[in-house]
Amino acid sequence: MASKVTPISGFQEWLPAQRIAEQYVLDTIREVFELHGFASINTRAVEPVDRLAGQGEDADKEIYGVRRLAAEAGEPTELGLHFDLTVPFSRYVVENAGKLTFPFRRYQIQPAWRGERPQRGRYREFIQADVDIVDTGELPFHYEVELPLVIADVFSRLPVGEYVILVNNRKICEGFYRGLGIEDVVQTLRTIDKLDKIGADGVTKVLGEQGLSAEQIRQCLALAQISSTDTSFADEVRALGVSHPLLDEGLEQLTAIMAVAGELAPGVLRAELKIARGLDYYTGTVYETLLLRQPEYGSICSGGRYDALASDGKRTYPGVGISIGVSRLLGLLIGEEGLTASRETPVAVLVAVNDEAQRTDSMRIATALRTRGINTLVAPKAAKFGKQIQFADRRGIPFVWFPGAGEAGQDQVKDIRSGEQVDADPGSWSPDQQDLRPTLVSPDSVG
Amino acid sequence: MASKVTPISGFQEWLPAQRIAEQYVLDTIREVFELHGFASINTRAVEPVDRLAGQGEDADKEIYGVRRLAAEAGEPTELGLHFDLTVPFSRYVVENAGKLTFPFRRYQIQPAWRGERPQRGRYREFIQADVDIVDTGELPFHYEVELPLVIADVFSRLPVGEYVILVNNRKICEGFYRGLGIEDVVQTLRTIDKLDKIGADGVTKVLGEQGLSAEQIRQCLALAQISSTDTSFADEVRALGVSHPLLDEGLEQLTAIMAVAGELAPGVLRAELKIARGLDYYTGTVYETLLLRQPEYGSICSGGRYDALASDGKRTYPGVGISIGVSRLLGLLIGEEGLTASRETPVAVLVAVNDEAQRTDSMRIATALRTRGINTLVAPKAAKFGKQIQFADRRGIPFVWFPGAGEAGQDQVKDIRSGEQVDADPGSWSPDQQDLRPTLVSPDSVG
Repeated sequence: MASKVTPISGFQEWLPAQRIAEQYVLDTIREVFELHGFASINTRAVEPVDRLAGQGEDADKEIYGVRRLAAEAGEPTELGLHFDLTVPFSRYVVENAGKLTFPFRRYQIQPAWRGERPQRGRYREFIQADVDIVDTGELPFHYEVELPLVIADVFSRLPVGEYVILVNNRKICEGFYRGLGIEDVVQTLRTIDKLDKIGADGVTKVLGEQGLSAEQIRQCLALAQISSTDTSFADEVRALGVSHPLLDEGLEQLTAIMAVAGELAPGVLRAELKIARGLDYYTGTVYETLLLRQPEYGSICSGGRYDALASDGKRTYPGVGISIGVSRLLGLLIGEEGLTASRETPVAVLVAVNDEAQRTDSMRIATALRTRGINTLVAPKAAKFGKQIQFADRRGIPFVWFPGAGEAGQDQVKDIRSGEQVDADPGSWSPDQQDLRPTLVSPDSVG
Repeated sequence: MASKVTPISGFQEWLPAQRIAEQYVLDTIREVFELHGFASINTRAVEPVDRLAGQGEDADKEIYGVRRLAAEAGEPTELGLHFDLTVPFSRYVVENAGKLTFPFRRYQIQPAWRGERPQRGRYREFIQADVDIVDTGELPFHYEVELPLVIADVFSRLPVGEYVILVNNRKICEGFYRGLGIEDVVQTLRTIDKLDKIGADGVTKVLGEQGLSAEQIRQCLALAQISSTDTSFADEVRALGVSHPLLDEGLEQLTAIMAVAGELAPGVLRAELKIARGLDYYTGTVYETLLLRQPEYGSICSGGRYDALASDGKRTYPGVGISIGVSRLLGLLIGEEGLTASRETPVAVLVAVNDEAQRTDSMRIATALRTRGINTLVAPKAAKFGKQIQFADRRGIPFVWFPGAGEAGQDQVKDIRSGEQVDADPGSWSPDQQDLRPTLVSPDSVG
C-alpha cells in the first residue's frame, strides 16, 4: 500500500481514547432518545440529486455528488450524499407511509456531508443526532413543548457545561410584523437575523432600504431585544402595543413552553425574540442551543416546527424536530477542550501467559471472565511478568490476572495501580463497577 | 418537497421494528468485540481516489467517486467512498502510528460502498463489522488462532442458525504446489477457486492449459478435496506424499488452530483445503463463514492473515483480520427470513392523559419512570381511555399508566395483554425485565 498519507481537512477522526468518549456521547444520546419513546431509523447515505437540490433549511449548502469512477464521461451525476438527516427522513416517511404508525417519533444518528469550506465547528463530514415527531394532517402543539425537554434530558447527562436553549416562535414575529403593517415578513426576518453581525444601526439602515418606516423599524428592534428566562417576555411584547391574532397565538404558545419548562427543566430555556434563523423555514417554535462559555461557537442543537415535512400528493406531514450537531459539539469538547476516556481500550483485565505452551489456559480464563461481561485480553507474549504488567499499564488496563500464581496454585489478580494482589476465581471475581469500563475524563479533571 | 419517491436498488433500509433487530445485532457484535479487547475506531467515509484504486482483496470492485456538484467541469474527482474498512484502517494506522499502542486491536462497524450491480446478498451500501490485530514488524501466530474464536463468540449470541467457519492456510497450498514443482502459485489458486463452479473436469482442463502435468493436477484436486472438523486433515495431506518446508509450517499452524478451537469452540471450525479465495491476497490463515442452511448465499464473514497491511516506508504492519458482512447477513435474516423485534418502538409504558389541562402531570410521571431507565411515552391526546389503550396496542407497547385512576386517587398501571390493572408508584414500579425493551422475534417463532 502507498505510504503517503493525505490528511483531508473537514473530516473529523479520533484516536481510540477519544473515540471512547465519542461513543459515550453517542450512546447517551441514543439512550435518552429511546427513554423518550423515539424509534431509530437509519437511511442510506445517498439521495437522488433532484431530491437534495433546493431543499432544507440552508439554501447555500454544497452537495457532494456520487458517481462511479468507471461511469461513462457523459453520464449525469444522479446521486448525492445527504447534507442533513431531514431530507432523507422526509423521503423515508413518504416511501413507507403505509407501514408507519403516526404520530411517528423517530431518532436518527448518522453522518451527513457538505462540500463547504471547513471552519471552526463546521465539517465536511459531521454526525447529526435528530429527533422528529411527524403526523398526518394535524400535529398537536404540545410536541413543541416536549422536544426541548428531551434535549435538556440529553444534556443533563453529558459534560457540556452550562448551556441555554433559546426559543422563539415564528407566529410572534410574523404576527407582530403584520400588526405593524409590514408585508415582506421573510425579508424582515432575514434582516433582523443580522442584528448581532451588523448591529442596530446596520439593521436600521437595511430595513429602511427595504421600505420600512422609522416607527416600524423601532418596533422591530424593540421586539428583537426582548429576552426572558420565564414567561415575562409576553408582557414586554404586549407593552409594545402591537396587536394581531397570529401574535396572540404565538405569545400563548411560547408562554406555554416557558411555563412547562420552568417546572420540568428549570433554568434551561430562554425566550429570545431576536432569533430569526430558520424562521423563514419553520412555521412555529424554533430552537437554538448555545454553550454559555462559548456562545460565539454557534448553535450546537437547533430545530423547530414545520407544517409540511413532506407531501405525497394525498397527505401532508407536519412535524417538529431538533438536531444535535454531535461533531460540532465534540469538536469543542474533545478536539479543543481535551475530553477523553480513562483508558484507550475497553479492556479491564489482562490475563498473563506463564509460557506459550500454557496460552490455552489463559484463554480459558479469559473466556470465563468474558462470560460475566468483563472485557478481557490475553497477553501477547509469555514475557517476564514485569513486561506483561507494563503492557497493561501502557494501555491503562487496571488489572492483571496471573494463572496459578497463588501458593496453592490458585489464580491471583493484581490491581496494578495499588499493587494489591489477591487470590481470585475467574468464575466469580469482578472488578469494581467504576473499573469495568473506561469512564469519561472531563477537561476539568485533566492534568 | 417533491412527492415522487425513487427507490434505489442496492441500498438496504429497514422499517422501525426491523431496525431494532438490526440494532440488536450491531450492539451484540460491538459488545463481543469489546469483551475480546478490541477498541473502536471510526474513519471518514472518503479516501483519496489514488489510495482506493488498485487496493484490497477484490480487484474488481467499483469505486464511487465523490465530487461537489458545484465543482468546475474540468476539476478531477479526488475523493472516493471507501469500498471496505481495511483501506481506511491501514491509512489510519500509518497516519496515527506514533499515537497508537501496538499490537493495536481495533474494531470498526461502518458502512462501505461499491458501485456494483446489486445481487442477492450484495449491496451498493453495506455495513461491515471488522476486527483486526496489527503489530509493527512481527505478529505472533497465536492471533490467527484467536480471531475465529471471537467470531464464534459473536455468532453464539445471534440467531444465525447453524454455521461453520471454514479455515485454510496459504502456506499449505503454496508449499504443496511448490513441492509438486508448480511455479505459478497464484494462478493455480485462482483456478482451484473455480472448483465449485466449473467442477473437477473444468479445473482439470484449465490447469492443463496452464501447463500442469496430469499428476500435478490430480494432486491439486486431491488436496482441494480434503476437509475435516478436527486435526485429521493433516494426515490426509501427508498421505499424498508431497513435501515442502512451507507445507509443514502450514499444516502445523492449521493443526494448532483446529486443536484449540476443538476445545474452546467445539464444532464451529472446519479445515477446508479447497478454499482459495483470498489466498492470493493473504499470507497465512484464511477464514470464510457459511450458514449451513444456505451455503450458496456465500460467506458472511471472511478474513485472514496478511504480512503487510500498510507500510510507511520505515515500518511494515503485519496483521490478521476478519470482517462480518452485517448487511449481507441481515439481508437474509431480516429481509428474507423475517427476523424482527417484538415491537416497533423502544417504549415500555404509555402514560395516559386524563385531559389536556393535566398533560404536565402525565409528563411528570413519565420523567419519574425515565429516571429509572424505563422507556416511556405520554399519550398524544386526552382521548377516551379505550383509544389511548388502542394507541399502545397498535405499537406493541405492553403497559398503559393511568394517573390517579385508583380508588384513593393513586396511579394505576395496566398490562394491556392480560388486562391486569394494579396500583403503582412511578418512583418504584418497574416492568418485568423481558418487557423493558423490545426483544428479537426469530423467524421460527413468527406466526
